[in-house]
Amino acid sequence: MAKILILYYSRTGNTRKMAEAVAAGVKGSGAEAVVCDVVEFAMDGLPEYDGIIAGTPTYYGLAAGPVKDFFDRSVVHHGKLEGLVGGAFSSSAVFGGGSETAVLSILQMMLVHGMIIQGQARGNHYGVVTLGEPDEDAVDRCRQLGKRVGKLAVRLFG
Amino acid sequence: MAKILILYYSRTGNTRKMAEAVAAGVKGSGAEAVVCDVVEFAMDGLPEYDGIIAGTPTYYGLAAGPVKDFFDRSVVHHGKLEGLVGGAFSSSAVFGGGSETAVLSILQMMLVHGMIIQGQARGNHYGVVTLGEPDEDAVDRCRQLGKRVGKLAVRLFG
Amino acid sequence: MAKILILYYSRTGNTRKMAEAVAAGVKGSGAEAVVCDVVEFAMDGLPEYDGIIAGTPTYYGLAAGPVKDFFDRSVVHHGKLEGLVGGAFSSSAVFGGGSETAVLSILQMMLVHGMIIQGQARGNHYGVVTLGEPDEDAVDRCRQLGKRVGKLAVRLFG
Amino acid sequence: MAKILILYYSRTGNTRKMAEAVAAGVKGSGAEAVVCDVVEFAMDGLPEYDGIIAGTPTYYGLAAGPVKDFFDRSVVHHGKLEGLVGGAFSSSAVFGGGSETAVLSILQMMLVHGMIIQGQARGNHYGVVTLGEPDEDAVDRCRQLGKRVGKLAVRLFG
Repeated sequence: MAKILILYYSRTGNTRKMAEAVAAGVKGSGAEAVVCDVVEFAMDGLPEYDGIIAGTPTYYGLAAGPVKDFFDRSVVHHGKLEGLVGGAFSSSAVFGGGSETAVLSILQMMLVHGMIIQGQARGNHYGVVTLGEPDEDAVDRCRQLGKRVGKLAVRLFG
Repeated sequence: MAKILILYYSRTGNTRKMAEAVAAGVKGSGAEAVVCDVVEFAMDGLPEYDGIIAGTPTYYGLAAGPVKDFFDRSVVHHGKLEGLVGGAFSSSAVFGGGSETAVLSILQMMLVHGMIIQGQARGNHYGVVTLGEPDEDAVDRCRQLGKRVGKLAVRLFG
Repeated sequence: MAKILILYYSRTGNTRKMAEAVAAGVKGSGAEAVVCDVVEFAMDGLPEYDGIIAGTPTYYGLAAGPVKDFFDRSVVHHGKLEGLVGGAFSSSAVFGGGSETAVLSILQMMLVHGMIIQGQARGNHYGVVTLGEPDEDAVDRCRQLGKRVGKLAVRLFG
Repeated sequence: MAKILILYYSRTGNTRKMAEAVAAGVKGSGAEAVVCDVVEFAMDGLPEYDGIIAGTPTYYGLAAGPVKDFFDRSVVHHGKLEGLVGGAFSSSAVFGGGSETAVLSILQMMLVHGMIIQGQARGNHYGVVTLGEPDEDAVDRCRQLGKRVGKLAVRLFG
């Protein structure tokens, strides 16, 4: 069974709520979902997963420091994540305030790992972006992201 | 008197409206503003300006083809635009639909020309992004962009 | 049999040579490869393919105008390319001259189409970048890109 | 006298060497240069400067964690850095390995602060990128970056 890790960093709780909605979407796709605060994640276990979806508040138009730090430390597994499926989401305070580039910063790090990512033809093309506390529509978009990544992992890893 | 060129590409009229609001902001800063459809602009005159603010609808997360084509053709002036002041704006159909990256694609082209760009600490950090027809708030943000770029041009070129 | 379209724009012939090497890599993966100048491609046939690899010279840090124009015109198929596999390559004149961002500009457009892209853990993470005329090493990296994209298409589409 | 802060993070010493060459260029422009390891910098003093040039090794295609962390912590001065001049440089292990995007990640954070950045029409358009230990040519490009940013700061702040 394909197993997806949903990592998040959250101070206000908004990004954590997004992570939970993403996990619900992953489960709906037939894959397993594990949700973890990026600061608490035990790096040793990373290669067990078939996919990683990472979420961050938008800090200076990029992933927050603790998320960047996670990817820097993930270098101990460099090469072993090739072919894993990836996805990203970000919450921000203002429209046009850097949430798209925050999502892209995560996708770039995943590409450097040799991971596989998929865009979306409708709506939030790169990954889910939300303003403030996630409303029903935002939660729904997070679920769709989880479902899309989960489905791709199921196709690739069963 | 500092002279700013506002170039836009517009099919629905939304980006053209933004261009006009940007021009009003430029004038409010004490600089001269010239607004022109990017398709009709006579490339010969480009080095006469002290700054360029370019606007585009969001097409595939980047500047529209005609805006890209303008910058490709501007290679005839390569080197002569070094030190000019720049800015960008983009309209799109959906939040998280690529408008931030469309603005950044224009700023990148300006950096390749050696131009000077300035961000903004509040709101639309990279450049103005709007959804659909620009409302009063969007028009105001466009005016602020024009004012910011105009002021910098006045400081640098009088 | 998975069928990959390799599109390129080339004025000096460098990007065309890269496209041919990419095609050789695709064939080595067990997929079919069709190479076409982006200006001559008949848009109608686009949804027949299981993947698209696009190459461009680095113009102002982004894909060249004709490549951008191709993606803008591909909007007639918007939604139908979801799930196709993608990849990108770019030739440039100088190290640090925008080739990475040119490759990323193509990947971004593919994500907006909902396509699937994969990075690489070693070397050119986002896609192949070369300086001037492609040497043996560059040709080899192009072949690897073709092979990687081809293999993923074969896994997904047989 | 315009005062420029050159911040760097360096483990192998390559990025530190670049920082020193950047500082030499700043001094050549008539501005004052202060070089500091980003981890040791006392955040309180940040608004005293007229410009910031930040350097990083290329980690996962972005600024290293400690550089990201610096910008996240700089939020205590948010708004006060508006109009400061900025620049960036990055060292990496491989051509096409993410150094351009690492430089751009720093420039994006500076734009979010409302800072002013300038590209370059020749060579490394966004900021200086180097491979491995900086050779004479790399050192020269770092000096030019320092000079360019220093000159702009002198024009704007005397």
